[in-house]
Formats: sequence, C-alpha cells, structure tokens
Amino acid sequence: MKKVLIAGATGSMGRKAVQLIEKQSDYQLVAILAPNATADTKLPAAVSRFDNLADINLAADVWIDFTTPQAVFANVKFALEHQMRPIVGTSGLSAEQVQQLQAIAQQQQLGGIIAPNFGLSAVLLMKFAKEAAHYFPDAEVIEMHHADKLDAPSATAITTARLIAANRKKNPAKTNMATEARGADYDGIAVHSVRLPGYVAHEQVLFGGPGEALTIRQDSFDRSSFMQGVQVALEKVMDLQELVFGLEKIL
Amino acid sequence: MKKVLIAGATGSMGRKAVQLIEKQSDYQLVAILAPNATADTKLPAAVSRFDNLADINLAADVWIDFTTPQAVFANVKFALEHQMRPIVGTSGLSAEQVQQLQAIAQQQQLGGIIAPNFGLSAVLLMKFAKEAAHYFPDAEVIEMHHADKLDAPSATAITTARLIAANRKKNPAKTNMATEARGADYDGIAVHSVRLPGYVAHEQVLFGGPGEALTIRQDSFDRSSFMQGVQVALEKVMDLQELVFGLEKIL
Amino acid sequence: MKKVLIAGATGSMGRKAVQLIEKQSDYQLVAILAPNATADTKLPAAVSRFDNLADINLAADVWIDFTTPQAVFANVKFALEHQMRPIVGTSGLSAEQVQQLQAIAQQQQLGGIIAPNFGLSAVLLMKFAKEAAHYFPDAEVIEMHHADKLDAPSATAITTARLIAANRKKNPAKTNMATEARGADYDGIAVHSVRLPGYVAHEQVLFGGPGEALTIRQDSFDRSSFMQGVQVALEKVMDLQELVFGLEKIL
Amino acid sequence: MKKVLIAGATGSMGRKAVQLIEKQSDYQLVAILAPNATADTKLPAAVSRFDNLADINLAADVWIDFTTPQAVFANVKFALEHQMRPIVGTSGLSAEQVQQLQAIAQQQQLGGIIAPNFGLSAVLLMKFAKEAAHYFPDAEVIEMHHADKLDAPSATAITTARLIAANRKKNPAKTNMATEARGADYDGIAVHSVRLPGYVAHEQVLFGGPGEALTIRQDSFDRSSFMQGVQVALEKVMDLQELVFGLEKIL
Repeated sequence: MKKVLIAGATGSMGRKAVQLIEKQSDYQLVAILAPNATADTKLPAAVSRFDNLADINLAADVWIDFTTPQAVFANVKFALEHQMRPIVGTSGLSAEQVQQLQAIAQQQQLGGIIAPNFGLSAVLLMKFAKEAAHYFPDAEVIEMHHADKLDAPSATAITTARLIAANRKKNPAKTNMATEARGADYDGIAVHSVRLPGYVAHEQVLFGGPGEALTIRQDSFDRSSFMQGVQVALEKVMDLQELVFGLEKIL
Repeated sequence: MKKVLIAGATGSMGRKAVQLIEKQSDYQLVAILAPNATADTKLPAAVSRFDNLADINLAADVWIDFTTPQAVFANVKFALEHQMRPIVGTSGLSAEQVQQLQAIAQQQQLGGIIAPNFGLSAVLLMKFAKEAAHYFPDAEVIEMHHADKLDAPSATAITTARLIAANRKKNPAKTNMATEARGADYDGIAVHSVRLPGYVAHEQVLFGGPGEALTIRQDSFDRSSFMQGVQVALEKVMDLQELVFGLEKIL
Repeated sequence: MKKVLIAGATGSMGRKAVQLIEKQSDYQLVAILAPNATADTKLPAAVSRFDNLADINLAADVWIDFTTPQAVFANVKFALEHQMRPIVGTSGLSAEQVQQLQAIAQQQQLGGIIAPNFGLSAVLLMKFAKEAAHYFPDAEVIEMHHADKLDAPSATAITTARLIAANRKKNPAKTNMATEARGADYDGIAVHSVRLPGYVAHEQVLFGGPGEALTIRQDSFDRSSFMQGVQVALEKVMDLQELVFGLEKIL
Repeated sequence: MKKVLIAGATGSMGRKAVQLIEKQSDYQLVAILAPNATADTKLPAAVSRFDNLADINLAADVWIDFTTPQAVFANVKFALEHQMRPIVGTSGLSAEQVQQLQAIAQQQQLGGIIAPNFGLSAVLLMKFAKEAAHYFPDAEVIEMHHADKLDAPSATAITTARLIAANRKKNPAKTNMATEARGADYDGIAVHSVRLPGYVAHEQVLFGGPGEALTIRQDSFDRSSFMQGVQVALEKVMDLQELVFGLEKIL
C-alpha cells in the first residue's frame, strides 16, 4: 500500500483527488497540505493535516499537487527532496522551473509527472493529431470556449497546431491566409477561436486530403475529467524513471 | 402544360436543369438558348435551339437561366419583356440590376425568382439562423471550403452573419475580438473560414446561451443539390406576384 | 408590476426561477408554495410562504410551477380558479389533464403555458426540423444522453421524429430498416440513442437530399438553460388568450 | 526505378492508380492486365497490355490489383510466384485465401499488402479508436452512408467496434441495450447506421468518460481518397518482409 500526500486538498481539484485516492486499492491518503483548511474540513480518519511545508514530518510515496502558481515550485522541490514522487496538476511552472525540478528528480533518482492538462480527451486529441499530421499535412484547429475566456487561442490549441506543424511530412496546400476570417497562423496551421456562452471547453482538429476528411474533437464538460488523467498517472508513477512533462508521454 | 426555355442548357447546371424539366408532369422543355451547343449536343425531340437572344421567336411560360455574369442581365430583361417568368441561378447581377429587373417585372405584371444560392440546405440554414437569433443573441459562423477557394469568408457566411446581427433582440456577451484567432467581425458576429483539400462547401452556425447550445450545419457535396431549389421555384413561380430575390422568400 | 407565485420554489428548478424573477423589472415575487421549505430557506423579504394549497390567501398574476407529477394538476387547477396565469414546467400531466386544464382556462378567460421542455435549443430544434421536413423528406434523429438514462429514445427525440413524419410532403427514400443498427422506427423516421458517460443531453436531426445535407443539433449542458424558456414565457404570458401546450407555440 | 504492373487498369480505381504511378519519381508503369481494354483505351507509351494472366511475359517489382472478387486470388498468387510484390485493393478475398497468399509470400520471401480499405482517414480512425479504447472503455460507433447502401452496419464500423472491444482495459458503464434505438451490439459496443440520400461514406466513434468526450470522425467524399493510401503502400512495399493485411499495419 503506497502512501499519498495531497497538497491543495481543500481546493476544488484537490477534493476530487481525495475522493480518487479513497477509491484506490493500492494507494492510501496519509496527509494533506492545506493552509486553508478550517475546523469544518472533513478528512478521512488517520490523515494528518499540515498548514505549512516546513511542518511536514512524515514521508509519503506520492505527492499530488493541485495548489497555486505561487506555491507549486517550492512544493514539488520539497517533495522530491523528501523522496516523494510528484504528480502535478498545478499550472504556473516556467520552462526553467520545470528543468530545475527535472534535475533534482534525476539527482534523487525519482520519477514523476507534471501535466498542464490532465484531461485524457485533450491529451489523446493532441497525440492523434500529431500522428495524423504524418499523412494529412493540411489541418486547421478550432477551439471553442465560454464567452468569459479572455485569451485566444487557448494554450492547448497552440500546442496542437505546433505539434501538427512539426510532424508534417509533406507540404500543405497553399491557402489564402491574408483575411481575418482565416484565423491565427501558428507555424502554418490556421487556428480559430470561438467564444460563446453555454460552451465549456472544446477543441477540434480538422484534417483534409483528396476526397476525404478526418476530424478529432474533444469536449471537456467539467474538470472532474482531470481525475481520469490523475488515475493514469497513479498507475504509472511508481515505475517512471524521470520527471516527465506532459501526460501524453506516459500514454 | 407550361412551357420552359432553358438558357445555358449545355453548361453543367443547365444540363441538370434539362433533366429536371424532363421529370416534371406540368412543365415541358420547348427551347434552349445555347451559343456553345455543338452538333453533338443531344436534345429531346421537339426542342428548339437558339444561338442568340435575338433569334428567339417563340414564347415560353418560364425562363430558366444558368448562363454567365456577362449574359444574365440581358437575358432576364428579354425574358420579362417577352412575358416569360424568370428562374435565375446565374450569379453576377448587381443590386442595381436586380432592382431594374424587378421594375420591369412590375410593369409586365410578372413574377419570378433570382437566387444567388438554390441550395435548399444553405437557404434553410440562413432562415433558421435568422429565427434563432431572436432567442440566442450569441452566435458565430464557421464556413469550410476546399483549399482552392480564394475569397474568405464566403458570401453565404457573410449574409448569414448579417441576418443574425439584424435579428438579435438582446445584446450578446462581450468577447475579446482583438486577436486574429477570433476571426472576422461582421456586425458583431465572428466569422471563421476553414480551407482544406477534400472539403467541398459547408457552413455551420453556432449559437450559445446559458447552459445550452444550438448548431445548424449544412453540407453541399455537389451542385446537383441546386436542382432541389429549382424544383421549389418551379412549384411556386406561376403564382409569384413579383420578381423575388432569394429562395428563402418563397420557402 | 405583475405579481408572481412560485410553486416548488425550493427545488433545483424553483430556486433558479426565484433568481430569474428577481432580475425582472416588471415582475415581482410575492409568494411561494413550498411544503419542503425549512427554517433555513432564505427568501427575499416580503415574500409569503405557504405549505399547502389550501392556505394560499393572496392573489398573484402568474403562477410558476416546478413541483411534482403528483401535485401539478391540483396546483394548476387552483391557479386558474384563482385568476392566476400558469407557467408550468413540471412534467407528468396526462393528455386528458392538459385538456381539462385548457377547458378551465377558457372558462376563466385566462392564458398560460404548459411546456414539457423549456430548453430553447431543444424547442427551436423541433421547430426547425418540422419546417425542414417540408423540403427534406429524408431524416434521422440521433439523441445522446448520459449512461444512466434508462429509457431510449428520449421523449424529445420521439416528438421530433413524429413532427418530421407529419410534415413531409414527399416520400422518403426506401432504406433497409430490418437490421438492429438502423435504430427504432417512429413513423418511418429512424431514431438512434447513444448512452455514454460524460454526455449530458444532446439531440441531432440529420436531413439528406441529392448532393447536400442539413443538420440541426442542440446540446443541453445543464438545466439552467430552462430559465431562458421561462423568460420567454414571462414576456408573453400576459397576452396569451389560451392555455397553450408547448413552448414552440409561442416562439 | 522500380517497375509496376497494374491489374484492372481500366476500371475506375485502376485508372486512378495509373495516374498515381505517373506522378512517382521512383516507380514506372510497365504493363497492365486489362481484359476489358478496348482500342480506345489510352495508355502511356511503352506500356504493355495483357488480356490474360497466362500471357504476361515480363516481370515487374510491384503488382497493383484493383480487379474483381473473382480474379483477385489467382492474380495475387501469380504475382507472388513471379516475384512481384502485391498491393491489393480488390475486395473479396476470404480469410483462408489471405492466409494461403501469406504462406506463398513467405516461401517467395516477398512482402506486400492487402487492404480492404485504402482510405487513410478510415484507417487512422480505426487506429486511434483502438488506442483511445485503452483509456475510454465507453464507446459507440455511428456510420452514415447514402440511402442505397443495403447492408448495415458497414464492414468498417463492425471492425472498429471489435477493435475497441478488444482493447478496453476497464469495464464500460452498464447501459440499457434492450430497445431498438440502442442499435446493434458488437462485443458490447453499440453500432448505429444512418442511411440518407446526399451522404457518401462517413463514420464517427464517440467516447465518453467522466466529464469529457472524445470523438473521431472520418468522411469519404469520393474514392479518389484511396490513392493516398496506395501512395503510402508504394513508399513502404519494397521494405516489407511479409504480406501484411490492413493498411493500419504499415502506418
């Protein structure tokens, strides 16, 4: 029975992670790091609660992190230095920070995973899009989000476009990109952003070739979907030899 | 049995129109205007063939026009002046020319129809989008065409966006239109154009409201679809009191 | 300022209705019928709370009902007999009960609306499907719901199929309906039901004709969408001359 | 420069194959087997034409076969026995025949490919569906074809369902399969068939998991799309060590 510490256990994702661990037969929750927990916070019996990193006086095998951009780097560094394998869903780590953490993991001979997106449908979409790009050099990306999302395109859509561009083996057809309706151009891939109330978070990749089309679409209806990806991480984390970045690396 | 003259009977659309008339029980093809017909051109028996407008020496009840932007105005004027009701699928008439022809039709007390798009799915999409706009002020348009289409967005997509904008009864949500990925802005409606090989001609309208979405999509796989719209025009043309513009007016 | 009584104000839909009324400039909540309300139930000031029909001793202009199949008939009868115009989103009324209530409304010279589905996207889908059937006799319905929904097809899908069948003007193409994969046959329309976790409530109508296709799709992500339909009912209810059945009648 | 013989070069697929070979820089058409060729059949210069298998008196490196179910077995056997690597798009080989041909290929130490479907979008859909099944045990298949297709579901849809079923790692959700609307059950996967005029050949796989969905769709607008798959086969056939069945094996 492996031991788990959850950092950020009282946030919306953290609470789902607590529920997820309770359903595992080979993992057991032993502690939470939760500065914002109150007297009312319900915890399974025999779970220690810590308010600060410095107070943590027990060891776990796995450190699950759903905290804040401000806290995540120190958290994961602490975890690695105390022989805990991190599963990190918190956003906000810079590329340099990720590299630093990967170096520490190597020194400590520990594996783990940092994933900006634990949604399996989004990660599989990217994986399949990358592979389809070998055969279909012509592709466009359409992402659709709720009207309140300010940035466009979404980070996932940009990543998808770049993956496709990097994996094409033939030149795409020439198209007119000069008009606004043709969207944003990322490495030669047109990316379109739809913003409408009612929508949640959705992405489509459209591939076209002579006489045929291939479309891959993912819909995230709510963030509970992330727990499927955390489940995959739990199944693999004890065998990982390094601190990998991106859920797709372990699918 | 009403008589039909088809102008442009040897072009790709004209040939389909000839076949369509052959299937009607209440219409009969009596003549074609076909400057490019050759000795090989097969015609039903008892159909007169004319090379020039000036040669036409018989009267029909209906004039179907699938010719060229250069010829269409003179053709339709001639038809109206000789008491033939026009069904016009040729593109290229300016707004002024349409008005002039409508005035002539009024003088002659003749009805008819000029339609830039005889595709029923496209016309119904516009009709429904216009109506949905009353209830869903938030909408975006995505049109998808083959990679060779140079202009973007398509004329139909622009028309659709303007119809939606003109029929909204509430203010839409504010979204960030400042980035390229958000597409072209037509009267406050974002319009996106996809250009990919394999695709033919397709359009989607996406509506979003609190907790729900409505999507209308049409696919034109080939232009044979236009004949469905011409069929509708044939069923109504003898009863029309004016020269209407747009198939949606008679649906 | 018109007065509103909400029956079922403490249920999930009723609470949303309370919020909706608070946003209206021409309606005011004066009372609730809420047998299950507790001391904790928060109510706007100056709102009367009743536990039983018999206790209601004030008059409102509009009666909004989101109660139970057991209570709804008596509730609406009471409302009409006390000069309140009903807006009814509760399911469970039989066709006979609806007719009885319509007769009472007529005697009382009151209008109102009973709607099995207040989701605007679903109601517009049915309206458009009915209209498209005039031109596209060939149609199929695919509805998609969460894996827990036991019945199939959904009531809305059946209604949609029957509306299409009743409004066709031409015979559809003959297809082989003899294999299971072809779905259920409702008046000659194939209806398919998808049941998958993650999905909420979605319906598509696919129309096909020579060389083209038309698709109408609606997605209900959560039941908050019903309040858009109640809003439409509020805007029209004071002008209705009869007790109409179905939101589509007033769109 | 490798030499190619095309069997069935005057059929609709064979003609496209002739055009495809003309565009290759490392392949050259040297002969056709075409019993139905007429004096009018246009062939590139220096291409031999044979009416019967027995007449073929030259060797090529690759044998492309788009013939008939009656001819294909003898053709491919002949090709292998004469040291030609087969690329076979003809349908109608039984499982036993495929095994016999694979045995001959092994004796002759030749590779090649037999593919029931050379459409890249369909083959990639199956490949991705198989992989997604590891993570999403809940899936349904919807295939859509023109109204004239008599059988349902399509062979590709059945293959897709079986691939998904065979690659699931978890139990799917329990759903009610007892009503007709739930479609046909292939190894626990619901398969739905839509038959509508206008449609060509399309397939969707819908995956659902907690809070998310993944959809893969392919559209075949015309059979010219098969040549993309033949192109891939040409790029790999000289390196194949066995007679593989299914284009997905070499993607």
